Amino acid sequence: MATPLRTVIGVDAGGTGTRAVLLDHTGRALSLARTGPGNPTSAGLDLAVTNIVAACTGAFTAAPEPVAQPDVIALCMAGVIAAGGRVPEVEAALVEAGFGATVAFKGDVLAAYFSATADPDGAVVIVGTGATGARIRDGEFEAMSDGLGWLIGDEGSGFWIGQQVVRAVCAALDGRGPDTALVDALMGLIDIEPQLSQPWRDERLMRILTWAYARRPVELSVAARLVTEVGDDPVAAGIVAEAAARVVTNVGSVTGADTDGPIVLGGSVVAPGSPVGRLVAAELGERVRHARDGIAGAALVALRELGVRADAEVLARISTGLAALP
Amino acid sequence: MATPLRTVIGVDAGGTGTRAVLLDHTGRALSLARTGPGNPTSAGLDLAVTNIVAACTGAFTAAPEPVAQPDVIALCMAGVIAAGGRVPEVEAALVEAGFGATVAFKGDVLAAYFSATADPDGAVVIVGTGATGARIRDGEFEAMSDGLGWLIGDEGSGFWIGQQVVRAVCAALDGRGPDTALVDALMGLIDIEPQLSQPWRDERLMRILTWAYARRPVELSVAARLVTEVGDDPVAAGIVAEAAARVVTNVGSVTGADTDGPIVLGGSVVAPGSPVGRLVAAELGERVRHARDGIAGAALVALRELGVRADAEVLARISTGLAALP
Repeated sequence: MATPLRTVIGVDAGGTGTRAVLLDHTGRALSLARTGPGNPTSAGLDLAVTNIVAACTGAFTAAPEPVAQPDVIALCMAGVIAAGGRVPEVEAALVEAGFGATVAFKGDVLAAYFSATADPDGAVVIVGTGATGARIRDGEFEAMSDGLGWLIGDEGSGFWIGQQVVRAVCAALDGRGPDTALVDALMGLIDIEPQLSQPWRDERLMRILTWAYARRPVELSVAARLVTEVGDDPVAAGIVAEAAARVVTNVGSVTGADTDGPIVLGGSVVAPGSPVGRLVAAELGERVRHARDGIAGAALVALRELGVRADAEVLARISTGLAALP
Repeated sequence: MATPLRTVIGVDAGGTGTRAVLLDHTGRALSLARTGPGNPTSAGLDLAVTNIVAACTGAFTAAPEPVAQPDVIALCMAGVIAAGGRVPEVEAALVEAGFGATVAFKGDVLAAYFSATADPDGAVVIVGTGATGARIRDGEFEAMSDGLGWLIGDEGSGFWIGQQVVRAVCAALDGRGPDTALVDALMGLIDIEPQLSQPWRDERLMRILTWAYARRPVELSVAARLVTEVGDDPVAAGIVAEAAARVVTNVGSVTGADTDGPIVLGGSVVAPGSPVGRLVAAELGERVRHARDGIAGAALVALRELGVRADAEVLARISTGLAALP
């Protein structure tokens, strides 16, 4: 008689959508379900709870064969650690929906890390709108760096780059800095009429001023992609180089001298082939891995919580299985 | 028979208070009146109008001898140029109060410039919470630089320095930057409990995070003074040097190569003896003048508008006279 299959559910609960994957304990992906926003901070608690439970129920009921109730549900989401490490309302709703599993809340950064490697010791840096670095030891966070938001941190992030672009354009129009192709590129983004006019100043500067303060500061990150779009421009290249240097510094602060594990890069700013990503990868060398789909990382986290084998081979099986699911 | 004395009123309408001085056309200060906030943007239009009119009426009625109605009222205030160069409600209220004077609206930056020099050609940079540079030609603005606010400009300003201080402290606590005496200095400013905790991060970092996002961004400028308070600290010295460099760049963009007029420094960040002010003055040399009381500049502006002599001797007479008034 074969050992009965045990199962787990890994959940990637994000600001725009939630996915849950049901796996057996060998890492074979059985079914996947997608629902709406699942981050309590951005979506609101009620909606997030509803979507997370619906995703778990959807994955479980979509299994192609009758399977045992999951022993573990691993929920990976941003902000959960800052919120105290768990969301009791989610736990209660899962019980109410009939799940008896152990529920483990983990940061989305951990899911990103385990999407790229099964090594329990390494480092990860996520550079999207924000920038967060973390050292992973024995599969858990051991240290963290930056992730302090646009006002006092997130150095090298999409916001940081976008703000540098806007500042460089203002300096160019003011005569405080060199001319740059970023001027025309930025004006192409700005479709607002200036609220102010000053007869002795460039009208474009007044448009930028009106535009920048008409939105949330973090939205300056839309200008980050211009450093790629303008091509060969010294000012843009300088911003890219400085962003990459700050990302490398971030990584350096979480990888101790005794660490030789993988360094996982995640987020659009350090994506493979991106200008910042290329510089960072060149600087950090062969230890670099690029984060893949966070749902694969959430699945590996769930298997780790179950206490079964969760090595590179299992991660490969998860990824292959996920790709084959509808 | 002596030529009858003509008079003018100069007004310094600020965010915390308004002052009006009545002068005769030779620059002799006759009377001074003080009222409350007079900036329409920060105080609200109604209150600003009331305080400006009350200051003008107060100065006129306090004259120690019967004098002619003023021919000119020069109103110097922040933001008036951006608002279109005049505030019709102020003009109407002055007419209603019995004044028949020509009303001239001027930027507070122009008053700062003319507080330090009577030269109609030169440059001025005001570095307080914000940072604005201007070239003055024939007594009016001819070019302007920065003054673009905390998000996209104000480079080298009190906000800029304060933000650099907080970022440097965060980097030090994160291991992303060198240790600095600014850490203890900043913690001395922060009396808030952290809203978040992360077991693997320095609790001070969580306090700073809570503190920084609990207020308006521009309030980070309170941390600017720490660069002075910590004394001999390499990180603080680096921030000061970089701030000074940006102020010098700002000045450089408004002083054309053909300009050899005075360069007036105003605002607390570049005050005489301040760390940034010392570096900027050393860099710019003997052309530097320090702004004095803006009401003296407003008075000189009023005389210029009247079209009478308004040279260094007249400015000295204004300053001496103002100092002698109650």
